[in-house]
Amino acid sequence: MSKRPLILVTNDDGITAPGIRNLIQVMNTIGDVVVVAPDSPQSGMGHAITIDSTLHLERLTIDDGPQIEYSCSGTPADCVKIAVNEILDRKPDLCVSGINHGSNSSINVIYSGTMSAAIEAGVEGIPAIGFSLLDYSWGANFEATKTYVSTITKQVLKNGLATGVILNVNFPNLNSEEIKGIKICRQAKANWKEKFDKRTNPMGREYYWLSGNFVNLDGGEDTDEWALENGYVSLVPVQFDLTAHHCIQTLNTWDLNE
Amino acid sequence: MSKRPLILVTNDDGITAPGIRNLIQVMNTIGDVVVVAPDSPQSGMGHAITIDSTLHLERLTIDDGPQIEYSCSGTPADCVKIAVNEILDRKPDLCVSGINHGSNSSINVIYSGTMSAAIEAGVEGIPAIGFSLLDYSWGANFEATKTYVSTITKQVLKNGLATGVILNVNFPNLNSEEIKGIKICRQAKANWKEKFDKRTNPMGREYYWLSGNFVNLDGGEDTDEWALENGYVSLVPVQFDLTAHHCIQTLNTWDLNE
Repeated sequence: MSKRPLILVTNDDGITAPGIRNLIQVMNTIGDVVVVAPDSPQSGMGHAITIDSTLHLERLTIDDGPQIEYSCSGTPADCVKIAVNEILDRKPDLCVSGINHGSNSSINVIYSGTMSAAIEAGVEGIPAIGFSLLDYSWGANFEATKTYVSTITKQVLKNGLATGVILNVNFPNLNSEEIKGIKICRQAKANWKEKFDKRTNPMGREYYWLSGNFVNLDGGEDTDEWALENGYVSLVPVQFDLTAHHCIQTLNTWDLNE
Repeated sequence: MSKRPLILVTNDDGITAPGIRNLIQVMNTIGDVVVVAPDSPQSGMGHAITIDSTLHLERLTIDDGPQIEYSCSGTPADCVKIAVNEILDRKPDLCVSGINHGSNSSINVIYSGTMSAAIEAGVEGIPAIGFSLLDYSWGANFEATKTYVSTITKQVLKNGLATGVILNVNFPNLNSEEIKGIKICRQAKANWKEKFDKRTNPMGREYYWLSGNFVNLDGGEDTDEWALENGYVSLVPVQFDLTAHHCIQTLNTWDLNE
Protein backbone atom coordinates (compact mmCIF):
# COMPACT_ATOMS: atom_id res chain seq x y z
CA MET A 1 0.00 0.00 0.00
CA SER A 2 1.24 3.41 -0.96
CA LYS A 3 1.69 5.90 1.86
CA ARG A 4 1.78 8.76 -0.60
CA PRO A 5 -1.16 11.14 -0.31
CA LEU A 6 -3.86 11.03 -2.98
CA ILE A 7 -4.08 14.50 -4.55
CA LEU A 8 -6.91 15.74 -6.79
CA VAL A 9 -5.82 18.52 -9.17
CA THR A 10 -8.21 20.82 -10.99
CA ASN A 11 -8.45 24.39 -12.32
CA ASP A 12 -10.67 26.77 -14.27
CA ASP A 13 -8.46 27.67 -17.22
CA GLY A 14 -8.87 24.21 -18.75
CA ILE A 15 -6.80 21.04 -18.56
CA THR A 16 -4.20 22.16 -21.11
CA ALA A 17 -3.37 25.49 -19.42
CA PRO A 18 0.30 25.98 -18.42
CA GLY A 19 -0.79 26.81 -14.87
CA ILE A 20 -2.26 23.38 -14.19
CA ARG A 21 0.62 21.62 -16.02
CA ASN A 22 3.03 23.32 -13.59
CA LEU A 23 0.86 22.43 -10.61
CA ILE A 24 0.76 18.76 -11.70
CA GLN A 25 4.57 18.70 -11.91
CA VAL A 26 4.88 19.89 -8.30
CA MET A 27 2.16 17.54 -7.03
CA ASN A 28 3.84 14.52 -8.70
CA THR A 29 6.78 15.09 -6.32
CA ILE A 30 4.46 14.96 -3.30
CA GLY A 31 1.77 12.36 -3.93
CA ASP A 32 -0.32 10.23 -6.28
CA VAL A 33 -2.04 12.63 -8.63
CA VAL A 34 -5.45 12.42 -10.32
CA VAL A 35 -6.38 15.36 -12.55
CA VAL A 36 -10.03 16.16 -13.31
CA ALA A 37 -10.22 19.53 -15.03
CA PRO A 38 -12.49 21.38 -17.47
CA ASP A 39 -12.07 20.60 -21.18
CA SER A 40 -12.29 24.35 -21.95
CA PRO A 41 -11.68 27.63 -20.09
CA GLN A 42 -14.17 28.38 -17.30
CA SER A 43 -12.88 31.65 -15.87
CA GLY A 44 -15.44 33.80 -14.11
CA MET A 45 -17.75 30.82 -13.63
CA GLY A 46 -18.00 31.42 -9.87
CA HIS A 47 -19.59 28.48 -8.12
CA ALA A 48 -21.71 27.45 -11.11
CA ILE A 49 -22.82 23.82 -11.33
CA THR A 50 -24.40 21.95 -14.25
CA ILE A 51 -27.95 20.97 -13.38
CA ASP A 52 -29.85 21.42 -16.65
CA SER A 53 -27.37 19.70 -18.94
CA THR A 54 -25.30 16.53 -19.21
CA LEU A 55 -21.63 16.04 -18.35
CA HIS A 56 -18.95 14.19 -20.30
CA LEU A 57 -15.70 12.73 -18.99
CA GLU A 58 -12.71 11.77 -21.11
CA ARG A 59 -9.59 9.90 -19.99
CA LEU A 60 -6.60 11.42 -21.73
CA THR A 61 -2.82 11.94 -21.68
CA ILE A 62 -1.53 15.46 -22.17
CA ASP A 63 2.10 15.23 -21.21
CA ASP A 64 4.49 12.76 -19.57
CA GLY A 65 4.19 11.90 -15.92
CA PRO A 66 2.62 9.40 -13.54
CA GLN A 67 -0.61 11.40 -13.13
CA ILE A 68 -4.00 10.02 -14.24
CA GLU A 69 -6.02 12.60 -16.15
CA TYR A 70 -9.63 13.23 -17.13
CA SER A 71 -11.18 16.21 -18.87
CA CYS A 72 -14.75 17.12 -17.94
CA SER A 73 -17.27 19.14 -19.95
CA GLY A 74 -18.56 20.90 -16.82
CA THR A 75 -17.58 23.72 -14.51
CA PRO A 76 -14.73 23.59 -11.96
CA ALA A 77 -17.21 22.72 -9.18
CA ASP A 78 -18.63 19.93 -11.38
CA CYS A 79 -15.09 18.55 -11.84
CA VAL A 80 -14.64 18.16 -8.10
CA LYS A 81 -18.07 16.61 -7.61
CA ILE A 82 -17.61 14.04 -10.39
CA ALA A 83 -14.02 13.28 -9.33
CA VAL A 84 -15.02 12.54 -5.75
CA ASN A 85 -18.21 10.66 -6.56
CA GLU A 86 -17.44 8.84 -9.84
CA ILE A 87 -13.71 8.63 -10.49
CA LEU A 88 -11.81 8.23 -7.23
CA ASP A 89 -11.96 5.05 -5.15
CA ARG A 90 -11.46 6.99 -1.95
CA LYS A 91 -11.70 10.55 -0.71
CA PRO A 92 -8.51 12.38 -1.70
CA ASP A 93 -6.18 13.65 1.02
CA LEU A 94 -5.98 17.02 -0.69
CA CYS A 95 -7.44 19.00 -3.56
CA VAL A 96 -5.39 21.71 -5.27
CA SER A 97 -6.80 24.07 -7.88
CA GLY A 98 -4.91 26.28 -10.32
CA ILE A 99 -2.40 27.63 -10.82
CA ASN A 100 -4.78 30.26 -12.12
CA HIS A 101 -3.66 32.64 -14.84
CA GLY A 102 -4.67 35.85 -13.04
CA SER A 103 -5.48 37.15 -9.58
CA ASN A 104 -8.05 35.67 -7.23
CA SER A 105 -7.26 38.02 -4.38
CA SER A 106 -9.78 40.24 -2.58
CA ILE A 107 -13.32 40.21 -4.03
CA ASN A 108 -12.15 38.15 -7.03
CA VAL A 109 -12.54 35.08 -4.82
CA ILE A 110 -16.33 35.16 -5.31
CA TYR A 111 -16.12 35.19 -9.15
CA SER A 112 -13.33 32.64 -9.32
CA GLY A 113 -13.77 29.20 -10.84
CA THR A 114 -10.38 28.21 -9.39
CA MET A 115 -11.50 29.03 -5.86
CA SER A 116 -14.98 27.56 -6.35
CA ALA A 117 -13.37 24.20 -7.16
CA ALA A 118 -11.27 24.42 -3.99
CA ILE A 119 -14.32 25.51 -1.97
CA GLU A 120 -16.38 22.65 -3.40
CA ALA A 121 -13.67 20.25 -2.18
CA GLY A 122 -13.87 21.93 1.23
CA VAL A 123 -17.64 21.39 1.27
CA GLU A 124 -16.96 17.69 0.59
CA GLY A 125 -14.63 17.61 3.62
CA ILE A 126 -11.36 17.58 1.66
CA PRO A 127 -8.48 19.92 2.64
CA ALA A 128 -8.10 22.26 -0.32
CA ILE A 129 -5.94 25.05 -1.71
CA GLY A 130 -6.46 27.40 -4.64
CA PHE A 131 -3.32 28.86 -6.26
CA SER A 132 -3.27 31.91 -8.55
CA LEU A 133 -0.54 33.97 -10.22
CA LEU A 134 -1.00 37.68 -10.95
CA ASP A 135 -0.40 37.24 -14.67
CA TYR A 136 -3.39 36.71 -16.97
CA SER A 137 -1.31 35.70 -20.00
CA TRP A 138 -1.20 32.13 -21.30
CA GLY A 139 2.60 32.45 -21.41
CA ALA A 140 2.86 33.38 -17.72
CA ASN A 141 6.04 32.16 -15.98
CA PHE A 142 5.22 29.85 -13.07
CA GLU A 143 8.83 28.99 -12.10
CA ALA A 144 8.95 31.23 -9.03
CA THR A 145 5.73 29.77 -7.64
CA LYS A 146 6.92 26.17 -7.44
CA THR A 147 8.83 26.12 -4.15
CA TYR A 148 6.01 28.04 -2.47
CA VAL A 149 3.36 25.69 -3.87
CA SER A 150 5.38 22.78 -2.54
CA THR A 151 5.93 24.32 0.91
CA ILE A 152 2.28 25.29 1.41
CA THR A 153 1.02 21.91 0.16
CA LYS A 154 3.32 20.00 2.53
CA GLN A 155 2.29 22.18 5.47
CA VAL A 156 -1.39 21.53 4.74
CA LEU A 157 -0.78 17.77 4.53
CA LYS A 158 1.21 17.90 7.80
CA ASN A 159 -1.01 20.24 9.84
CA GLY A 160 -4.42 19.71 8.25
CA LEU A 161 -6.99 22.45 7.89
CA ALA A 162 -9.86 23.31 10.23
CA THR A 163 -13.24 22.00 9.02
CA GLY A 164 -14.82 24.36 6.53
CA VAL A 165 -11.58 26.27 5.79
CA ILE A 166 -9.85 26.48 2.38
CA LEU A 167 -6.65 28.35 1.50
CA ASN A 168 -6.59 31.06 -1.17
CA VAL A 169 -2.98 31.60 -2.27
CA ASN A 170 -1.97 34.34 -4.69
CA PHE A 171 1.49 34.92 -6.13
CA PRO A 172 2.87 38.32 -7.17
CA ASN A 173 4.24 38.32 -10.72
CA LEU A 174 7.88 38.49 -9.63
CA ASN A 175 11.10 36.49 -9.89
CA SER A 176 12.12 34.16 -7.05
CA GLU A 177 14.68 36.64 -5.74
CA GLU A 178 12.10 39.42 -5.58
CA ILE A 179 9.49 37.47 -3.59
CA LYS A 180 9.83 38.24 0.12
CA GLY A 181 7.96 35.22 1.54
CA ILE A 182 4.44 34.16 2.49
CA LYS A 183 2.05 36.37 4.46
CA ILE A 184 -1.17 35.19 6.16
CA CYS A 185 -3.79 37.80 5.23
CA ARG A 186 -7.42 38.76 5.26
CA GLN A 187 -9.42 39.44 2.07
CA ALA A 188 -9.07 43.15 1.19
CA LYS A 189 -12.27 45.20 0.98
CA ALA A 190 -11.86 46.10 -2.68
CA ASN A 191 -14.07 45.73 -5.72
CA TRP A 192 -14.45 46.30 -9.44
CA LYS A 193 -15.76 49.54 -10.86
CA GLU A 194 -17.43 48.18 -13.97
CA LYS A 195 -17.49 49.83 -17.34
CA PHE A 196 -19.67 48.49 -20.15
CA ASP A 197 -18.33 48.99 -23.65
CA LYS A 198 -21.43 49.49 -25.82
CA ARG A 199 -21.14 48.56 -29.51
CA THR A 200 -23.38 47.93 -32.50
CA ASN A 201 -23.16 44.68 -34.45
CA PRO A 202 -23.24 44.50 -38.29
CA MET A 203 -27.01 43.91 -38.13
CA GLY A 204 -27.51 47.14 -36.17
CA ARG A 205 -28.18 45.50 -32.80
CA GLU A 206 -26.51 46.94 -29.71
CA TYR A 207 -24.41 44.75 -27.44
CA TYR A 208 -22.07 45.19 -24.47
CA TRP A 209 -18.69 44.00 -23.27
CA LEU A 210 -18.16 43.92 -19.51
CA SER A 211 -14.90 45.53 -18.42
CA GLY A 212 -13.77 47.60 -15.48
CA ASN A 213 -11.10 48.74 -13.08
CA PHE A 214 -10.15 47.19 -9.78
CA VAL A 215 -10.43 49.71 -6.93
CA ASN A 216 -8.84 49.03 -3.54
CA LEU A 217 -9.87 51.49 -0.84
CA ASP A 218 -8.76 49.19 1.99
CA GLY A 219 -5.66 50.67 3.60
CA GLY A 220 -5.03 47.70 5.91
CA GLU A 221 -1.55 46.19 5.92
CA ASP A 222 -3.01 42.80 6.83
CA THR A 223 -4.80 42.37 3.47
CA ASP A 224 -3.96 40.17 0.50
CA GLU A 225 -3.74 43.23 -1.74
CA TRP A 226 -1.16 44.86 0.52
CA ALA A 227 0.91 41.66 0.64
CA LEU A 228 0.89 41.25 -3.14
CA GLU A 229 1.75 44.90 -3.80
CA ASN A 230 4.65 44.58 -1.38
CA GLY A 231 6.21 41.46 -2.88
CA TYR A 232 4.71 38.75 -0.67
CA VAL A 233 2.75 35.62 -1.50
CA SER A 234 -0.70 36.14 0.07
CA LEU A 235 -2.43 33.30 1.91
CA VAL A 236 -6.03 33.92 2.98
CA PRO A 237 -8.03 31.27 4.87
CA VAL A 238 -11.49 31.21 3.30
CA GLN A 239 -14.77 29.78 4.59
CA PHE A 240 -18.10 28.83 3.00
CA ASP A 241 -20.19 29.62 6.07
CA LEU A 242 -21.29 32.99 4.75
CA THR A 243 -23.25 33.89 7.89
CA ALA A 244 -22.53 37.45 9.05
CA HIS A 245 -22.67 36.35 12.69
CA HIS A 246 -21.92 39.89 13.92
CA CYS A 247 -25.29 41.09 12.55
CA ILE A 248 -27.57 38.56 14.20
CA GLN A 249 -27.98 40.51 17.42
CA THR A 250 -28.97 43.71 15.59
CA LEU A 251 -31.42 41.91 13.32
CA ASN A 252 -33.14 40.43 16.36
CA THR A 253 -34.08 43.98 17.41
CA TRP A 254 -36.01 44.62 14.16
CA ASP A 255 -39.84 44.70 14.06
CA LEU A 256 -40.27 41.57 11.98
CA ASN A 257 -42.97 39.73 13.92
CA GLU A 258 -45.43 42.23 15.32
CA MET B 1 -39.02 64.70 -6.91
CA SER B 2 -40.31 61.34 -5.84
CA LYS B 3 -39.53 60.28 -2.29
CA ARG B 4 -40.28 56.68 -3.14
CA PRO B 5 -37.26 54.40 -2.96
CA LEU B 6 -35.71 53.17 -6.21
CA ILE B 7 -35.78 49.37 -6.19
CA LEU B 8 -33.86 47.10 -8.56
CA VAL B 9 -35.50 43.68 -9.02
CA THR B 10 -33.75 40.64 -10.47
CA ASN B 11 -33.70 36.84 -10.19
CA ASP B 12 -32.14 33.70 -11.65
CA ASP B 13 -35.20 31.84 -12.95
CA GLY B 14 -35.64 34.32 -15.81
CA ILE B 15 -37.74 37.45 -16.21
CA THR B 16 -41.00 35.58 -16.97
CA ALA B 17 -40.88 33.32 -13.87
CA PRO B 18 -43.91 33.59 -11.53
CA GLY B 19 -41.55 34.19 -8.60
CA ILE B 20 -40.22 37.49 -9.96
CA ARG B 21 -43.68 38.56 -11.18
CA ASN B 22 -44.93 38.22 -7.59
CA LEU B 23 -41.91 40.07 -6.24
CA ILE B 24 -42.50 42.94 -8.69
CA GLN B 25 -46.13 43.22 -7.53
CA VAL B 26 -45.04 43.66 -3.91
CA MET B 27 -42.23 46.09 -4.79
CA ASN B 28 -44.64 48.27 -6.82
CA THR B 29 -46.49 48.97 -3.54
CA ILE B 30 -43.25 50.14 -1.88
CA GLY B 31 -41.17 52.03 -4.45
CA ASP B 32 -40.25 52.83 -8.04
CA VAL B 33 -39.29 49.55 -9.64
CA VAL B 34 -36.76 48.76 -12.36
CA VAL B 35 -36.45 45.11 -13.36
CA VAL B 36 -33.26 43.77 -14.98
CA ALA B 37 -33.43 40.00 -15.09
CA PRO B 38 -32.04 37.14 -17.19
CA ASP B 39 -33.83 36.34 -20.46
CA SER B 40 -33.59 32.61 -19.65
CA PRO B 41 -33.23 30.44 -16.53
CA GLN B 42 -29.84 30.72 -14.76
CA SER B 43 -30.28 28.44 -11.75
CA GLY B 44 -27.09 27.00 -10.31
CA MET B 45 -25.00 29.71 -11.96
CA GLY B 46 -23.38 30.71 -8.67
CA HIS B 47 -21.50 33.97 -8.97
CA ALA B 48 -20.69 33.50 -12.66
CA ILE B 49 -20.04 36.62 -14.74
CA THR B 50 -19.77 36.98 -18.53
CA ILE B 51 -16.23 37.95 -19.47
CA ASP B 52 -15.61 36.04 -22.71
CA SER B 53 -18.86 36.86 -24.44
CA THR B 54 -21.14 39.78 -25.24
CA LEU B 55 -24.29 40.89 -23.40
CA HIS B 56 -27.62 41.99 -24.84
CA LEU B 57 -30.29 44.10 -23.17
CA GLU B 58 -33.91 44.34 -24.27
CA ARG B 59 -36.56 46.76 -22.99
CA LEU B 60 -39.86 44.90 -22.76
CA THR B 61 -43.31 44.74 -21.15
CA ILE B 62 -44.39 41.44 -19.65
CA ASP B 63 -47.44 42.35 -17.63
CA ASP B 64 -49.27 45.44 -16.42
CA GLY B 65 -47.77 47.71 -13.82
CA PRO B 66 -45.65 50.83 -13.42
CA GLN B 67 -42.33 48.94 -13.42
CA ILE B 68 -39.69 49.45 -16.11
CA GLU B 69 -38.28 46.17 -17.39
CA TYR B 70 -35.23 44.89 -19.24
CA SER B 71 -34.19 41.36 -20.02
CA CYS B 72 -30.45 40.63 -20.14
CA SER B 73 -28.67 37.76 -21.90
CA GLY B 74 -26.20 37.35 -19.03
CA THR B 75 -26.04 35.82 -15.57
CA PRO B 76 -27.80 37.21 -12.47
CA ALA B 77 -24.57 38.94 -11.38
CA ASP B 78 -24.27 40.46 -14.89
CA CYS B 79 -27.84 41.81 -14.57
CA VAL B 80 -26.95 43.75 -11.44
CA LYS B 81 -23.69 45.08 -12.90
CA ILE B 82 -25.32 46.30 -16.11
CA ALA B 83 -28.35 47.72 -14.25
CA VAL B 84 -26.20 49.78 -11.93
CA ASN B 85 -23.67 50.90 -14.52
CA GLU B 86 -25.70 51.27 -17.73
CA ILE B 87 -29.43 51.49 -17.03
CA LEU B 88 -30.06 53.34 -13.78
CA ASP B 89 -29.43 57.06 -13.40
CA ARG B 90 -28.59 56.69 -9.73
CA LYS B 91 -27.64 53.94 -7.32
CA PRO B 92 -30.82 52.11 -6.25
CA ASP B 93 -31.91 52.27 -2.61
CA LEU B 94 -32.44 48.52 -2.59
CA CYS B 95 -31.94 45.42 -4.71
CA VAL B 96 -34.24 42.41 -4.29
CA SER B 97 -33.68 39.09 -6.02
CA GLY B 98 -36.14 36.23 -6.47
CA ILE B 99 -38.54 35.01 -5.45
CA ASN B 100 -36.57 31.88 -6.30
CA HIS B 101 -38.41 28.69 -7.19
CA GLY B 102 -36.56 26.43 -4.73
CA SER B 103 -34.47 26.62 -1.59
CA ASN B 104 -31.35 28.73 -1.14
CA SER B 105 -30.88 27.84 2.49
CA SER B 106 -27.73 26.36 4.02
CA ILE B 107 -24.94 25.52 1.53
CA ASN B 108 -27.27 26.24 -1.42
CA VAL B 109 -26.36 29.90 -0.97
CA ILE B 110 -23.01 29.32 -2.70
CA TYR B 111 -24.56 27.73 -5.83
CA SER B 112 -27.42 30.20 -6.04
CA GLY B 113 -27.85 32.66 -8.88
CA THR B 114 -30.55 34.43 -6.86
CA MET B 115 -28.18 35.06 -3.97
CA SER B 116 -25.24 35.90 -6.23
CA ALA B 117 -27.30 38.74 -7.71
CA ALA B 118 -28.09 40.02 -4.22
CA ILE B 119 -24.45 39.61 -3.16
CA GLU B 120 -23.29 41.46 -6.28
CA ALA B 121 -25.56 44.35 -5.27
CA GLY B 122 -24.01 44.21 -1.80
CA VAL B 123 -20.53 44.43 -3.34
CA GLU B 124 -21.71 47.56 -5.18
CA GLY B 125 -22.79 49.06 -1.85
CA ILE B 126 -26.55 48.56 -2.32
CA PRO B 127 -28.68 47.06 0.50
CA ALA B 128 -29.90 43.74 -0.90
CA ILE B 129 -32.19 40.81 -0.13
CA GLY B 130 -32.56 37.43 -1.80
CA PHE B 131 -35.94 35.68 -1.43
CA SER B 132 -36.57 31.98 -2.08
CA LEU B 133 -39.56 29.64 -1.67
CA LEU B 134 -39.07 25.94 -0.90
CA ASP B 135 -41.01 24.85 -3.99
CA TYR B 136 -39.09 24.15 -7.21
CA SER B 137 -42.19 23.97 -9.43
CA TRP B 138 -43.05 26.70 -11.94
CA GLY B 139 -46.60 26.66 -10.55
CA ALA B 140 -45.44 27.36 -6.97
CA ASN B 141 -47.88 29.44 -4.87
CA PHE B 142 -46.25 32.68 -3.68
CA GLU B 143 -49.33 34.14 -1.93
CA ALA B 144 -48.17 33.39 1.61
CA THR B 145 -44.78 35.03 1.02
CA LYS B 146 -46.12 38.47 0.12
CA THR B 147 -46.71 40.03 3.55
CA TYR B 148 -43.34 38.75 4.75
CA VAL B 149 -41.57 40.08 1.65
CA SER B 150 -43.20 43.45 2.29
CA THR B 151 -42.35 43.51 6.01
CA ILE B 152 -38.71 42.54 5.52
CA THR B 153 -38.24 45.00 2.64
CA LYS B 154 -39.69 47.89 4.65
CA GLN B 155 -37.51 47.04 7.65
CA VAL B 156 -34.39 47.03 5.46
CA LEU B 157 -35.36 50.41 3.95
CA LYS B 158 -36.00 51.79 7.44
CA ASN B 159 -33.03 50.33 9.34
CA GLY B 160 -30.46 49.89 6.57
CA LEU B 161 -27.99 47.04 6.47
CA ALA B 162 -24.42 47.00 7.76
CA THR B 163 -21.81 47.43 4.99
CA GLY B 164 -21.05 44.12 3.31
CA VAL B 165 -24.15 42.35 4.63
CA ILE B 166 -26.97 40.90 2.48
CA LEU B 167 -30.11 39.09 3.66
CA ASN B 168 -30.90 35.54 2.56
CA VAL B 169 -34.62 34.88 3.17
CA ASN B 170 -36.20 31.45 2.61
CA PHE B 171 -39.91 30.63 2.89
CA PRO B 172 -41.27 27.23 3.91
CA ASN B 173 -43.81 25.87 1.42
CA LEU B 174 -46.80 26.47 3.72
CA ASN B 175 -50.06 28.42 3.84
CA SER B 176 -50.17 31.79 5.61
CA GLU B 177 -51.89 30.27 8.67
CA GLU B 178 -49.21 27.62 9.00
CA ILE B 179 -46.23 30.01 8.94
CA LYS B 180 -45.15 30.86 12.49
CA GLY B 181 -43.15 34.03 11.76
CA ILE B 182 -39.61 35.12 10.86
CA LYS B 183 -36.50 33.73 12.56
CA ILE B 184 -32.99 35.24 12.35
CA CYS B 185 -30.68 32.28 11.71
CA ARG B 186 -27.22 31.13 10.83
CA GLN B 187 -26.45 29.04 7.72
CA ALA B 188 -26.79 25.33 8.63
CA LYS B 189 -23.72 23.13 8.16
CA ALA B 190 -25.35 20.84 5.60
CA ASN B 191 -24.40 19.75 2.10
CA TRP B 192 -25.34 17.65 -0.90
CA LYS B 193 -24.36 14.02 -1.22
CA GLU B 194 -24.02 13.85 -4.99
CA LYS B 195 -25.06 10.96 -7.15
CA PHE B 196 -24.15 10.84 -10.84
CA ASP B 197 -26.61 9.07 -13.09
CA LYS B 198 -24.45 7.47 -15.82
CA ARG B 199 -26.13 6.81 -19.18
CA THR B 200 -25.15 5.98 -22.75
CA ASN B 201 -26.31 8.13 -25.63
CA PRO B 202 -27.64 6.73 -28.95
CA MET B 203 -24.12 7.03 -30.42
CA GLY B 204 -22.68 4.87 -27.64
CA ARG B 205 -20.99 7.68 -25.72
CA GLU B 206 -21.32 7.79 -21.94
CA TYR B 207 -22.65 10.86 -20.19
CA TYR B 208 -23.72 11.87 -16.69
CA TRP B 209 -26.53 13.72 -14.96
CA LEU B 210 -25.70 15.37 -11.64
CA SER B 211 -28.20 14.61 -8.90
CA GLY B 212 -28.02 14.06 -5.18
CA ASN B 213 -29.57 14.21 -1.75
CA PHE B 214 -29.38 17.06 0.73
CA VAL B 215 -27.90 15.93 4.04
CA ASN B 216 -28.21 18.07 7.17
CA LEU B 217 -26.10 16.85 10.08
CA ASP B 218 -26.30 20.19 11.91
CA GLY B 219 -28.49 19.76 14.97
CA GLY B 220 -28.50 23.46 15.92
CA GLU B 221 -31.86 25.11 16.55
CA ASP B 222 -30.45 28.46 15.38
CA THR B 223 -30.02 27.31 11.76
CA ASP B 224 -32.02 28.16 8.65
CA GLU B 225 -32.79 24.46 8.11
CA TRP B 226 -34.26 24.13 11.61
CA ALA B 227 -36.40 27.25 11.13
CA LEU B 228 -37.76 26.07 7.79
CA GLU B 229 -38.51 22.56 9.06
CA ASN B 230 -40.37 24.08 11.98
CA GLY B 231 -42.60 26.41 10.00
CA TYR B 232 -40.62 29.65 10.18
CA VAL B 233 -39.35 32.01 7.50
CA SER B 234 -35.54 31.91 7.80
CA LEU B 235 -33.50 35.11 7.56
CA VAL B 236 -29.71 34.70 7.41
CA PRO B 237 -27.39 37.72 7.20
CA VAL B 238 -24.73 36.84 4.61
CA GLN B 239 -21.33 38.42 3.93
CA PHE B 240 -18.88 38.35 1.01
CA ASP B 241 -15.79 38.73 3.17
CA LEU B 242 -14.96 35.02 3.05
CA THR B 243 -11.94 35.35 5.36
CA ALA B 244 -11.91 32.67 8.06
CA HIS B 245 -10.58 35.15 10.61
CA HIS B 246 -10.54 32.51 13.36
CA CYS B 247 -7.80 30.58 11.49
CA ILE B 248 -5.30 33.38 11.02
CA GLN B 249 -3.59 32.90 14.38
CA THR B 250 -3.07 29.16 13.80
CA LEU B 251 -1.76 29.67 10.28
CA ASN B 252 0.81 32.13 11.63
CA THR B 253 2.36 29.25 13.62
CA TRP B 254 3.03 27.19 10.46
CA ASP B 255 6.56 26.77 9.04
CA LEU B 256 5.98 28.73 5.86
CA ASN B 257 9.02 30.96 5.77
CA GLU B 258 12.05 29.08 7.06
